[in-house]
Amino acid sequence: MRPTAEPRTDAGAKLAILAGGGTLPARIAAAVRGQGREVFIVAFDGHTDPETVSGLPHLWSRFGAAGTILRRLHDEGVGEVVFAGPVRRPSFTELMPDWRTARFLARVGTRALGDDGLLRAVVREVEEDGFRVVGLHDLLKDLLTAPGLVGRHSPDADAERDIARGVEVARALGALDVGQGAVVQQGIVLAVEAVEGTDAMLDRCGSLRRPGPGGVLVKVKKPKQDRRIDLPTMGLTTVERAAAAGLRGIAIEAGGSLLVDRAAVAEAADRLGLFVLGIESSS
Amino acid sequence: MRPTAEPRTDAGAKLAILAGGGTLPARIAAAVRGQGREVFIVAFDGHTDPETVSGLPHLWSRFGAAGTILRRLHDEGVGEVVFAGPVRRPSFTELMPDWRTARFLARVGTRALGDDGLLRAVVREVEEDGFRVVGLHDLLKDLLTAPGLVGRHSPDADAERDIARGVEVARALGALDVGQGAVVQQGIVLAVEAVEGTDAMLDRCGSLRRPGPGGVLVKVKKPKQDRRIDLPTMGLTTVERAAAAGLRGIAIEAGGSLLVDRAAVAEAADRLGLFVLGIESSS
Repeated sequence: MRPTAEPRTDAGAKLAILAGGGTLPARIAAAVRGQGREVFIVAFDGHTDPETVSGLPHLWSRFGAAGTILRRLHDEGVGEVVFAGPVRRPSFTELMPDWRTARFLARVGTRALGDDGLLRAVVREVEEDGFRVVGLHDLLKDLLTAPGLVGRHSPDADAERDIARGVEVARALGALDVGQGAVVQQGIVLAVEAVEGTDAMLDRCGSLRRPGPGGVLVKVKKPKQDRRIDLPTMGLTTVERAAAAGLRGIAIEAGGSLLVDRAAVAEAADRLGLFVLGIESSS
Repeated sequence: MRPTAEPRTDAGAKLAILAGGGTLPARIAAAVRGQGREVFIVAFDGHTDPETVSGLPHLWSRFGAAGTILRRLHDEGVGEVVFAGPVRRPSFTELMPDWRTARFLARVGTRALGDDGLLRAVVREVEEDGFRVVGLHDLLKDLLTAPGLVGRHSPDADAERDIARGVEVARALGALDVGQGAVVQQGIVLAVEAVEGTDAMLDRCGSLRRPGPGGVLVKVKKPKQDRRIDLPTMGLTTVERAAAAGLRGIAIEAGGSLLVDRAAVAEAADRLGLFVLGIESSS
């Protein structure tokens, strides 16, 4: 086993990427392979972009097939597991359990499906099978949002008040395990995020916006959220959709969110006139 | 002055109806005139349904023209004022203040625009001019939602859990002065309401719903809300949109919301297979 600069991951172990949607899983695969590590992709029907598995060893599966997935990871000699990319709440059909999954669901209870308790239980289950679950930020340290500005625009005093209001609302929603985001304009909460996701929330803000200075998008980690799963994520698309919705900035929790492709985000923010700010957690 | 069965309103006084959207202002006008009272309608450009003022003494105005409106109410000999029907947050153009409004806004501060503080301040301002502000439920007692079922369908144990979760979330949002409603399905919060309104929230639930038993809509009064302004309201349209979104029921706060046309709501709920339940406030 080789020494590693990343104390929370073992660079000598084969890494399984449990791949949600978007481009993040493919980015992680490319970065990790660039470090000389072997990867194995678990792709989920209807969620993972097929491009993700192109040319890489992989398994297509349903969420409910936990037994099959874990057996395959053992067979492949996987040592570490990472959850990458958003997974919209799976439907019951997708969760249709095999024997292993049924035993798991019976233990955690189906009511847990409504909250992060499910994801935390999944992490525990994978760890009890002998795998090490690592966070995306353990693999790519510069993925975690740093405090401070990205790009050259910065919020004025009004925008800072909107950010504070957005943090208050998003944190309260997060404490209830509802969502991670809110949009605030001139003190008015235009939209709050539940299962529709940030993109859909931003899209409806286009018609809800008021005249005058635009709103801000705020995303924070849920207070009890395990940083290894489903951290708030933003990238180029978020900036573009925020601009299309007439917003003038984005504030995301430093150390509690992922910033995908910082250079592209900074370029787009500068070009579109938005500020992007990593805000310190108050807790 | 005649004696009245309604201690909180003076049936001998002329009533000004500050009319928001929908059919509620016209219903109130018809009911009050049926009791032999005189009414005067203040209609707002772009908000009030033109049908509302048909055949009735009225004034079309902008929100910002508080001076003009209050002078006219004095000239008309108005004694009581009621706020009826939803008003989406007015734009800044609509609020463009006359001298009286400017003095008012300067005193309450424009940051109050973001919350119910504005509406409370408007009520105080109208009262300081010598008018009595009454609630819709003071005029039409059976408009206030009663505890218990409307129609013949009732929630099962799963739906009751979804209601409890919805109340928890909607109340927290209300405490933050964000919104009054949430939709919960199988323990998952599908949507939470901000400025888009209940109808728009229901419409997006159609594509967010999961297979299996449908969700429930929960609406509660904001904890600090004055019952004379902007109570959560439901009527026939709410039932029809909830059914179209695949919901199986609606729970609204008894004593803290308005049920418009109870007979039509019961008929539609029975026909469409939804329960409608007035729930007791826990506070």
